[in-house]
Amino acid sequence: MEPFRLHILGCSSAMPTMKHYPACQVLNVREKLFMIDCGEGAQLQLRRMGLNFNRISAIFLSHLHGDHVFGLPGLISTFSMLGRTQSLHIYAPDDLEKVLRPWLDFFSPGLEFEVVCHKVCPTREEVIYDDRSLRVTTLPLSHRIPCCGFRFDEKPLLPHIRRDMIDYLGIPTYAIAAIKAGAGWTDAEGREWPHERLTTPAAPPRSYAYCSDTQYLPALAKRVSGVDLLYHEATFAQSEAVRAEQTCHSLASEAAQIALQAHAKRLLIGHFSARYEDESILLREAQAVFPNTLLAYEDLQIDL
Amino acid sequence: MEPFRLHILGCSSAMPTMKHYPACQVLNVREKLFMIDCGEGAQLQLRRMGLNFNRISAIFLSHLHGDHVFGLPGLISTFSMLGRTQSLHIYAPDDLEKVLRPWLDFFSPGLEFEVVCHKVCPTREEVIYDDRSLRVTTLPLSHRIPCCGFRFDEKPLLPHIRRDMIDYLGIPTYAIAAIKAGAGWTDAEGREWPHERLTTPAAPPRSYAYCSDTQYLPALAKRVSGVDLLYHEATFAQSEAVRAEQTCHSLASEAAQIALQAHAKRLLIGHFSARYEDESILLREAQAVFPNTLLAYEDLQIDL
Repeated sequence: MEPFRLHILGCSSAMPTMKHYPACQVLNVREKLFMIDCGEGAQLQLRRMGLNFNRISAIFLSHLHGDHVFGLPGLISTFSMLGRTQSLHIYAPDDLEKVLRPWLDFFSPGLEFEVVCHKVCPTREEVIYDDRSLRVTTLPLSHRIPCCGFRFDEKPLLPHIRRDMIDYLGIPTYAIAAIKAGAGWTDAEGREWPHERLTTPAAPPRSYAYCSDTQYLPALAKRVSGVDLLYHEATFAQSEAVRAEQTCHSLASEAAQIALQAHAKRLLIGHFSARYEDESILLREAQAVFPNTLLAYEDLQIDL
Repeated sequence: MEPFRLHILGCSSAMPTMKHYPACQVLNVREKLFMIDCGEGAQLQLRRMGLNFNRISAIFLSHLHGDHVFGLPGLISTFSMLGRTQSLHIYAPDDLEKVLRPWLDFFSPGLEFEVVCHKVCPTREEVIYDDRSLRVTTLPLSHRIPCCGFRFDEKPLLPHIRRDMIDYLGIPTYAIAAIKAGAGWTDAEGREWPHERLTTPAAPPRSYAYCSDTQYLPALAKRVSGVDLLYHEATFAQSEAVRAEQTCHSLASEAAQIALQAHAKRLLIGHFSARYEDESILLREAQAVFPNTLLAYEDLQIDL
């Protein structure tokens, strides 16, 4: 099956640690790569994880705090050195153009590719990207500055043709596309063969939601309902509830509440505060609410 | 002896690789830390190498190419989160203020410490930093944009007092500072004891020169003469001589020529082109000219 694969490049919160890079992920959808947030070191991690720079077609930024953005100048500069010509589309819920452009003009003059900054509205759920494989929808979040998450929904796949039936009925090649798309077949004797007899169903389309940074937001559950994998920030443990509220971040148990209410298949937590040298407390608190929870870590790769 | 210690945080050229971070070094002079260049990942490497963020008092940037600069926003943002109040002085041969300030205003508003950008003249040799332990002098280099190296000279140390002589002559404590500073002593019988009888000489002051990025510049040898350690870029091997000239970089053998003519004690080469997965060719070509050559690598620490 074609990949729908998440790579974790960084999962620290604002202050990177000995083991965690700032926020950055890559979602591989049928070999097209989508970057989500771009913390410092994104290009170093891309290289280390053997991900192909040329396959990155778009970057989605949750918000313009430095730990989600500072990898951009280096990444773009390396794209340029690698001879990129394909446009780079960056989606962000704030005026990235204003802050990024002067740096590109100064540090990467004469780029051979276009960097297109798309300002998305962080307060409504909206489709911001749509191609033949994928639809990306914004998820309003609640943080100290404009911020949104992203839901990635794979487009439904076409069913598989049953080769045995095609051969048995002698169906010509030109008719196959229509059958894949839903048609049936009428044979030489006028007998009707419904679509379902000629195909086996496609695998169900896959989905992933990225929610960081945000305070606990019960309304989010409906928006990420049924996803195969939910990434939700879990900056703090229960004992730091006051701090979480002050800084507009979530507790591990709150991330788990969202997963539970959303009927997500799995929950991945990250954006850990630097105070947790051992994050097992976060995992335990989340699993008490939603057992199918995993801790993010650099180099983690999850196939959906 | 108090440290005069070089740490390599990154030694790639423009494009980082699987094993090399972009240019960044820290020189520890008697426990005060001076950063030299600040490529992407500088703060990640600082953390990993256990260097104390609070001890960094100044940053020296050779030039404003991204691979020497992109670590600044993240480093400054982390300084802020760590509660820094001490001013941060950044020396650069170009208008850093103009390009950095808007990013600080946007990403790190309300900094509790001052970031002072000093524009230094890259075309003359000039003392740009001077405290009781250290003097830093610019070294004009020749690159595609304004660029300079830095020579770090330790201030002469005071001689060691000979405790046995002090006790023997019954010299009072109040007189010791003057003796350390060069005075002799006259005993109760009027006998003169010269300074040299009362002290043992201090260790010779130590020196380090950082030269990157630059094309081969024979005039540099005199300016770095006699240094204990010379870091010189060696982006290319002999076979890439044309490319080196086009891009204003040096060959390994040219770095070695400078070390040889300067009578440097040791040469450390770095800023390796990403094409050399194995840098031993660069080492061999340099050692053929100047045997006491070392290859830089991340986490390398050299005590002078």
